[in-house]
Amino acid sequence: MPRMSLAYTIFKDIYQAHSIVINSTLALLLGLILFEMGWLTKSDYQPKGKHCYVTGGTQGLGKALAESLVRQGAHVTVIARDVEKGKRVEAELKSIAQPNQIIQFISADLTDPQSSLDTLNRATERFEGKVPDYIYLCAGFSKPKYMVDSSMKEFQAGFDGTYWVSAYTAHAAVKLMVTQRVLGKIVFVSSFLGYTSFAGYTNYSPGKYALRGLADALRSEMLLHDIKIHIFMPCGIAGPGYEAENEFKPAVTLKIEEDDTQISPEQCAAALETGLRKGYYQITDNIVCDFARLRSNGGVPTNNFFADCFYLFISSFGLPIWRMTADATVRKGRKAVQEDYEARGVYDHSSK
Amino acid sequence: MPRMSLAYTIFKDIYQAHSIVINSTLALLLGLILFEMGWLTKSDYQPKGKHCYVTGGTQGLGKALAESLVRQGAHVTVIARDVEKGKRVEAELKSIAQPNQIIQFISADLTDPQSSLDTLNRATERFEGKVPDYIYLCAGFSKPKYMVDSSMKEFQAGFDGTYWVSAYTAHAAVKLMVTQRVLGKIVFVSSFLGYTSFAGYTNYSPGKYALRGLADALRSEMLLHDIKIHIFMPCGIAGPGYEAENEFKPAVTLKIEEDDTQISPEQCAAALETGLRKGYYQITDNIVCDFARLRSNGGVPTNNFFADCFYLFISSFGLPIWRMTADATVRKGRKAVQEDYEARGVYDHSSK
Repeated sequence: MPRMSLAYTIFKDIYQAHSIVINSTLALLLGLILFEMGWLTKSDYQPKGKHCYVTGGTQGLGKALAESLVRQGAHVTVIARDVEKGKRVEAELKSIAQPNQIIQFISADLTDPQSSLDTLNRATERFEGKVPDYIYLCAGFSKPKYMVDSSMKEFQAGFDGTYWVSAYTAHAAVKLMVTQRVLGKIVFVSSFLGYTSFAGYTNYSPGKYALRGLADALRSEMLLHDIKIHIFMPCGIAGPGYEAENEFKPAVTLKIEEDDTQISPEQCAAALETGLRKGYYQITDNIVCDFARLRSNGGVPTNNFFADCFYLFISSFGLPIWRMTADATVRKGRKAVQEDYEARGVYDHSSK
Repeated sequence: MPRMSLAYTIFKDIYQAHSIVINSTLALLLGLILFEMGWLTKSDYQPKGKHCYVTGGTQGLGKALAESLVRQGAHVTVIARDVEKGKRVEAELKSIAQPNQIIQFISADLTDPQSSLDTLNRATERFEGKVPDYIYLCAGFSKPKYMVDSSMKEFQAGFDGTYWVSAYTAHAAVKLMVTQRVLGKIVFVSSFLGYTSFAGYTNYSPGKYALRGLADALRSEMLLHDIKIHIFMPCGIAGPGYEAENEFKPAVTLKIEEDDTQISPEQCAAALETGLRKGYYQITDNIVCDFARLRSNGGVPTNNFFADCFYLFISSFGLPIWRMTADATVRKGRKAVQEDYEARGVYDHSSK
């Protein structure tokens, strides 16, 4: 008891002498934590009443996102190629919408620049020509293949289906937003494979990296016009797209990915919207993507400061170690690939 | 003296008791340092007698590289669009070559897939159809412009002139190297702006990021065939390309870059070849690029282990701080840009 009283007396003396400093420090720290948790600021992401333009909105992430936006009271325009599927999704969305919400589907091929521009303009018709407030660029596909086995056409198509399918629309939307002075948001969808890459993705990663390059430049440039740019970097999304992709996937690529977790489109859309609500620039849906993010993002704005310091520390050695194991997997697959090429007559024995 | 003798005695006792452990540790450390310095391994980069294919080889980095390769005794094929300039450079290269060296210039537009393939095939004619051993993809240009001020055509052309100008040739070369079982090297040229980006580079950074995505995937995939992939990430290269670029450069972009150092094409080529000799995957010519590299490279193989740990430590906070100052520069330029747009009638006052 006497010791405790002594400690208490000392603490009381120190506290009384320095109470202002101690209290301010504690308040500052608490404020910083609350700020990082997003509890002090009202999010500017409010889909209710906004016109949301969702490309690739008839399946996977795009469809889950469109549903969530409709439930939140947004007007939603969904773009995809397949008319039949589009009409079905349009009806589904209308069935969960309020009567005052505008829901529309437009069929279009967004790998064409003119079609991308025309489609965006068509979507504005029921909004007196006003550009959509939020643009979500979810369209795209993945067909992993070794470069040696890809024709130039396939190599090019892979790129169009990852980069231009979003970049043309972004270009058209930026111009409309600036000229109409709409303080909108543009959300790109890249991938874990937009941070780092490996065998099988020569027709996919270039486009996903390019989207990151476009978003990085545009995020900075759009500070001039108060237009917000975000980019989503998801891991594998479960669903028809992923299953279709696995049909062609080279053995080495499959092997590297065998322990990956797929996330459902609904969880994926929820992670994206959580990130948008928090105002994050690069949004992930998985801790593995967060590790990759901190060793790959080129110093763009971070998310939660404390968590990001931890991710950076771990990924500083974790990501290179993962990459080394992926390299080892490729080397182990070498013999099978070379035997396959020999059997298929890929090697030209006549040449020097 | 007695103290020293005591210390000496203690050291001697410890050393004698543990000499094997101490000596092995010292030898291991020395070995590691020598290995990292590249003194224990013979480089497999030996241009002498090799056929080197240099795109964009009539000016800047490409020309400096072609000269260096000729001096080292390589056969050199230079590709560029401008016939007159090409013929002049061909004559210059021949004047410093030995009679047994094959020096040739081919005029071609490498932003076209068929032309890229045909040009590579034409280059093999004097080599009995054998694909070049080393491919250096130096062609490309930069025309910084705000996206709002760019037509869709300009936006697309910027991409073709950064990505496809190299990717088509890489695709054609990989196929030939694998079928002919040539253990060649392909060297991409990206940029500091392939790691991180800012206002003005929406038509440039996507292509430079995409090259990194292609190289990352291909480096892994080509472990299957023992073909080596490298990517050069230079800072600004002094010369006609850089001067041409500065003519159009938006004010904000110029301001962010005002303290940058330009490196001469010769220094730049020397840095690239030093990196190739050391077997580095991502090669830089400047410490600033090294800082960006460690926070952006997605865990690809590093260069000097000790130096890279230092770069990573510094860039962990250094790169975000640089990015924040760049963002502040953009924000400061906001008023002037908006006034300019108002004056030029960019804003559409009729719309909502």
